[in-house]
Amino acid sequence: MKFSTEDHPHRRLNPLTGDWVQVSPHRAKRPWQGQVEKMEEESRPEHDPSCYLCAGNTRIGGEVNPDYSDTYSFQNDFSSLLEDTPEGEVNENDLFVAKSERGICRVICFSPRHDLTIPELELPSVRKVIDLWAKEYEELGSKSFINHVQIFENKGAVMGCSNPHPHGQIWAQESIPQEPAKKQIKQSEYFDKKGRTLLSDYIASELEKEERLLFENDHFVALVPYWATWPFETMIVPKRNVQRITDLTEEEKDAFADAYKKLTTLYDNLFEISFPYSAGIHQAPTDGKDHPEWHMHMLFYPPLLRSATVKKFMVGYEMLANAQRDITPEQAAYRLRSLSTVHYKQSSS
Amino acid sequence: MKFSTEDHPHRRLNPLTGDWVQVSPHRAKRPWQGQVEKMEEESRPEHDPSCYLCAGNTRIGGEVNPDYSDTYSFQNDFSSLLEDTPEGEVNENDLFVAKSERGICRVICFSPRHDLTIPELELPSVRKVIDLWAKEYEELGSKSFINHVQIFENKGAVMGCSNPHPHGQIWAQESIPQEPAKKQIKQSEYFDKKGRTLLSDYIASELEKEERLLFENDHFVALVPYWATWPFETMIVPKRNVQRITDLTEEEKDAFADAYKKLTTLYDNLFEISFPYSAGIHQAPTDGKDHPEWHMHMLFYPPLLRSATVKKFMVGYEMLANAQRDITPEQAAYRLRSLSTVHYKQSSS
Ligand SMILES: O=P(O)(O)O[C@H]1O[C@H](CO)[C@@H](O)[C@H](O)[C@H]1O
Ligand SMILES: O=P(O)(O)O[C@H]1O[C@H](CO)[C@@H](O)[C@H](O)[C@H]1O
Repeated sequence: MKFSTEDHPHRRLNPLTGDWVQVSPHRAKRPWQGQVEKMEEESRPEHDPSCYLCAGNTRIGGEVNPDYSDTYSFQNDFSSLLEDTPEGEVNENDLFVAKSERGICRVICFSPRHDLTIPELELPSVRKVIDLWAKEYEELGSKSFINHVQIFENKGAVMGCSNPHPHGQIWAQESIPQEPAKKQIKQSEYFDKKGRTLLSDYIASELEKEERLLFENDHFVALVPYWATWPFETMIVPKRNVQRITDLTEEEKDAFADAYKKLTTLYDNLFEISFPYSAGIHQAPTDGKDHPEWHMHMLFYPPLLRSATVKKFMVGYEMLANAQRDITPEQAAYRLRSLSTVHYKQSSS
Repeated sequence: MKFSTEDHPHRRLNPLTGDWVQVSPHRAKRPWQGQVEKMEEESRPEHDPSCYLCAGNTRIGGEVNPDYSDTYSFQNDFSSLLEDTPEGEVNENDLFVAKSERGICRVICFSPRHDLTIPELELPSVRKVIDLWAKEYEELGSKSFINHVQIFENKGAVMGCSNPHPHGQIWAQESIPQEPAKKQIKQSEYFDKKGRTLLSDYIASELEKEERLLFENDHFVALVPYWATWPFETMIVPKRNVQRITDLTEEEKDAFADAYKKLTTLYDNLFEISFPYSAGIHQAPTDGKDHPEWHMHMLFYPPLLRSATVKKFMVGYEMLANAQRDITPEQAAYRLRSLSTVHYKQSSS
């Protein structure tokens, strides 16, 4: 019997983080008697008077949203990190170690339309989201105490999203958080050795192999990474080794918007629901240094596994021991790739 | 303004893993408009003819469970890891790296009673669970290709548990999974430097400080770790630096059972529901070496945050950047400590 990653349990390395994921190709067949999610596909109004993200409405803190017509951002009324945190440290025998942390949290409304999500917005509207991200990254990152800007989106109630109005968040802070910090180390090691970014070499191979590729356009590649952990995890990567969103050309930003809309359309078409996920951009820190090792990319971590209502639980073994997945990245890519890029709500069949 | 971990956003270090957790003490107050869990407290029969874990019933694979009267274990019918996986490796330019992985997965029934959970079982029955864990650790660990034995329990539908019959699992395997591997490194560093286990020094301090302590008995301490990540995360630690469950004396095993039952009773009493969690034991690997640096401990990761129906979502920022919590470990310990150790279903008030 010859070992094959298609048939046999194995571990794969994520070269960007140094983490391993355990893959059990044979395990997708087990029956499911556990929790199913409720996936109410309610139809939402274009404007909801009770939504604190809709234009013209009053937020919980008392502020009134302007009558915005494309995107809109503001400081999170319940920021996890605050600007005026005093400096300070604790260290008792290396066992009780703490450090104060300053930061700024922002909310990013993608559109005034309460009822539309990224795959349903017109391309120029999606492009405006990219522009706002770039503007926020620039503004927040230029503050001297902000060394990292995390742009992200939680979509769907199952992902802890407390409001269906299409929006994302940014948490900007003093320290470099753990996930990007790991990637900084691994990308530096690779760049020092080869003089090229890890992801340029990686996507060049993937474009050749094709088995995990979803699509490409002139400037971006969308694929299921070889080391994907979530069942339908994907990644959007610029072909050029761009360090950060503000380094993208106008044309590249258009291509980014196109890839973002296309990928989320595939997702919605997979189970014909508004597909939940957490997504976010990993890119160079804003610590004032040059980061030739960094190759920006956007990640999508969707929780669903078998259907609109059965998700992958990262529990017990995964929490205590090791990340683990039940279908292979290749199977996931195959399923996503075979879907239409026309949104199911907009197709006439 | 002086920095205080009670009031200000900060990061804390987990010295066992080297990971950081971000703490936002001020953030517990934000309103919740997101997903609520359904927590059906159905009353279950003592024996359920359709349950594949109940005594005498036929499992999906066709095997029939014996008429067991205390605990019962068997090989998982949908094992994630298999014994007969062929050896093999992939390495293409350090970018596509995979390794085959052998292992054995077992299911551990805690009791024939379909309707009772750990806090509701009599102490001698809980002790039998500890004995079975020890027996399985011994048997699996003595196989030459098994270097790590992960004992764990997923409790509750919200933790992906597909059957309410009280049970846990064991995944035993060739490699040391990531979480225990990190702890091995950190505990070794500490032991080499100080000649004592990290956790003996840590629990000695916690017993003095008391603010995160839940309770102690003759041989075990239960506490909320300084670096707890989940809202009501806790840890049970033997006072003696025991490397592994099979090194516990008879008396210590009784004390372990007592602590396990007491802690899960506090949990159930917190929101007066059968409290969901993933739990598991971290202990020395079964690689045939002595591990004086290892100090075994049992961890509990419960998902609930505010009530029986609102959980903490580890999503967006947490998945992409850094673990983050909203109430402090000290607040959580205070709430748990003030609860009765008599189970709410058994108290007569
Ligand atoms: O083995 P079970 O109970 O069917 O499955 C559960 O526990 C496993 C181990 O933590 C996880 O991989 C699964 O996602 C979860 O649903
Ligand atoms: O900020 P929100 O949308 O209220 O909250 C959501 O996203 C945050 C950042 O990922 C998480 O910490 C919360 O657990 C989640 O519910």
